[in-house]
Amino acid sequence: MPKQYRRIVLASRPQQHASVDNFRLETLDIPELTEGQVLIKNHFLSLDPYMRVRMNAERGYADPQALNETMIGGTVGTIVATKNARFTVGEKVIGMMGWAEMGVSDGVLLRKLDTSHIPLSAYLGAVGMPGMTAWYGLTQIMQVKAGETVLVSAASGAVGSVVGQLAKLQGCRVIGIAGGSEKCEYVVNQLGFDACVDYKSQDWQQQLIAASPQGIDAIFENVGGEVFDACLLRMNPFGRIALCGMIAGYESEELPIKNARVLLTQRLTVRGFIISEHMDLWPQGLKELGSLVASGKIKFKESIAPDLAAAPEAFLGLLKGKNFGKQLVRLLPE
Amino acid sequence: MPKQYRRIVLASRPQQHASVDNFRLETLDIPELTEGQVLIKNHFLSLDPYMRVRMNAERGYADPQALNETMIGGTVGTIVATKNARFTVGEKVIGMMGWAEMGVSDGVLLRKLDTSHIPLSAYLGAVGMPGMTAWYGLTQIMQVKAGETVLVSAASGAVGSVVGQLAKLQGCRVIGIAGGSEKCEYVVNQLGFDACVDYKSQDWQQQLIAASPQGIDAIFENVGGEVFDACLLRMNPFGRIALCGMIAGYESEELPIKNARVLLTQRLTVRGFIISEHMDLWPQGLKELGSLVASGKIKFKESIAPDLAAAPEAFLGLLKGKNFGKQLVRLLPE
Repeated sequence: MPKQYRRIVLASRPQQHASVDNFRLETLDIPELTEGQVLIKNHFLSLDPYMRVRMNAERGYADPQALNETMIGGTVGTIVATKNARFTVGEKVIGMMGWAEMGVSDGVLLRKLDTSHIPLSAYLGAVGMPGMTAWYGLTQIMQVKAGETVLVSAASGAVGSVVGQLAKLQGCRVIGIAGGSEKCEYVVNQLGFDACVDYKSQDWQQQLIAASPQGIDAIFENVGGEVFDACLLRMNPFGRIALCGMIAGYESEELPIKNARVLLTQRLTVRGFIISEHMDLWPQGLKELGSLVASGKIKFKESIAPDLAAAPEAFLGLLKGKNFGKQLVRLLPE
Repeated sequence: MPKQYRRIVLASRPQQHASVDNFRLETLDIPELTEGQVLIKNHFLSLDPYMRVRMNAERGYADPQALNETMIGGTVGTIVATKNARFTVGEKVIGMMGWAEMGVSDGVLLRKLDTSHIPLSAYLGAVGMPGMTAWYGLTQIMQVKAGETVLVSAASGAVGSVVGQLAKLQGCRVIGIAGGSEKCEYVVNQLGFDACVDYKSQDWQQQLIAASPQGIDAIFENVGGEVFDACLLRMNPFGRIALCGMIAGYESEELPIKNARVLLTQRLTVRGFIISEHMDLWPQGLKELGSLVASGKIKFKESIAPDLAAAPEAFLGLLKGKNFGKQLVRLLPE
């Protein structure tokens, strides 16, 4: 058993663009467990865009990440010591242990994982928060029907890839948006989308028009900005937009919707949501996602940073779309 | 019985700002009725912001107004000749006879009116399309609850005044937005709103903040633009926005929502709607509105242009907020 572990804290708040200097790697002693606590060895950390919002001082939909505290983050790991009767050593759990190799928990927010049919890391992706985000937006907001055209931005990512595959399973025509030909080919050939618009190509607007000959009935939006505005112009009447993220604006003053008039002229519904506020639906959604991943009907891809020290750079890459699939950080070995 | 009547046609499409030159007054012979037709003498014409959208060549949610044809518009009038067994001379009817003193109809889209408790002109306002627009947005989209704070733009207008009064009847705190102290005083003192922000005053932003100490739970939006953007920043989590109009952008290239990020951070729902697509709810809504107007629980105010020739100028005034209350045009006397 090691005596120490490493963690990353928020050292300072970004002025505009986050940088590696905003983070600090620390080594701490593993504390003694008190009654009711467990010690977890974390194997994977999930990196997600919402973390950028928390780095700012302004309160968004949640409190800011505290300075000099462990960066927030979802983790999967193994119970390595326990003074809590609910847990035994060797059990796999998911929790919010943050950017840290190990962690102590009272167990309340831990969930035990069955890795017999689903790989451990998938619980941070397609069978976890990103998958639930996709499932909620598609089933509760977009409410798509077979034959409708669905558009998904950040289509090769942890959330977008699940949205599109679920929509295909429901009989929709699915258009992805991704950056670069490699991602677009993956989205079409591996994930089975009908088309993918490469927003980094010069003719992305023509690609969008060509990909949506019957317009767009529902959008799952992760990015916002210029591309989203162009998509709005393709919307059919009574279209639904699940507004999940506006990553294009996380480091800017404002991110307007320029073609807002379309909301009126096409009688659209836009709804912003945060998946952590819909815990009542997680059991149902995770059950469905788990079956689909276990049976291979939902595929996923991961980018894995090699160790905790690489987390800041991997996170900054995520904000720029440099990751390809779910961005994880490998922590301690199982 | 006169032999001729006057109408106004769309003579040309506006480049950007509509002007009186876009309209042409014509005198026509009253045609002979054929079997199934009725002749209507129109007493009042309703002027509404949607007409500006129809003047453009681009298809919005409806076909453009045809050039050299009678301008579209809702009217109330009296049957003065009939070859249709459903109608008798002297009956009051509402229809879409356009900017015209008289009109011929096959009766299909006419509705008979009972003026025993409700003045005829109210059927073009609080007990008509504007009232239904208010009712639909409030009950179907905003779904307000007692104690919530509701904001209404164009609060002294035909739609906004009904939204606010309905919301007060439901036990909400109601904030209006209107241009000028006269309108604001009317909104508070006559209509019973809790507060009214004068968007023409220098300190409108401070007024808005002072009027919404507990934030805003639901918005009925008629205008869009800078003031709407400021209102977004006051929204509480899970707020609902009924997007009824964006009159501030009807004569401009685009009208952005600058603070779009709030849709996400506050998990808002925005829904654009057009009342003519929800005819199934009109009987219920009009019944409620009719009772409330007849019993004096909903008050309304009218600006009445003196005759058809004054309609273009009155319409241009409406687009600039020069009207005070429902804008009508007086046509032929009863």
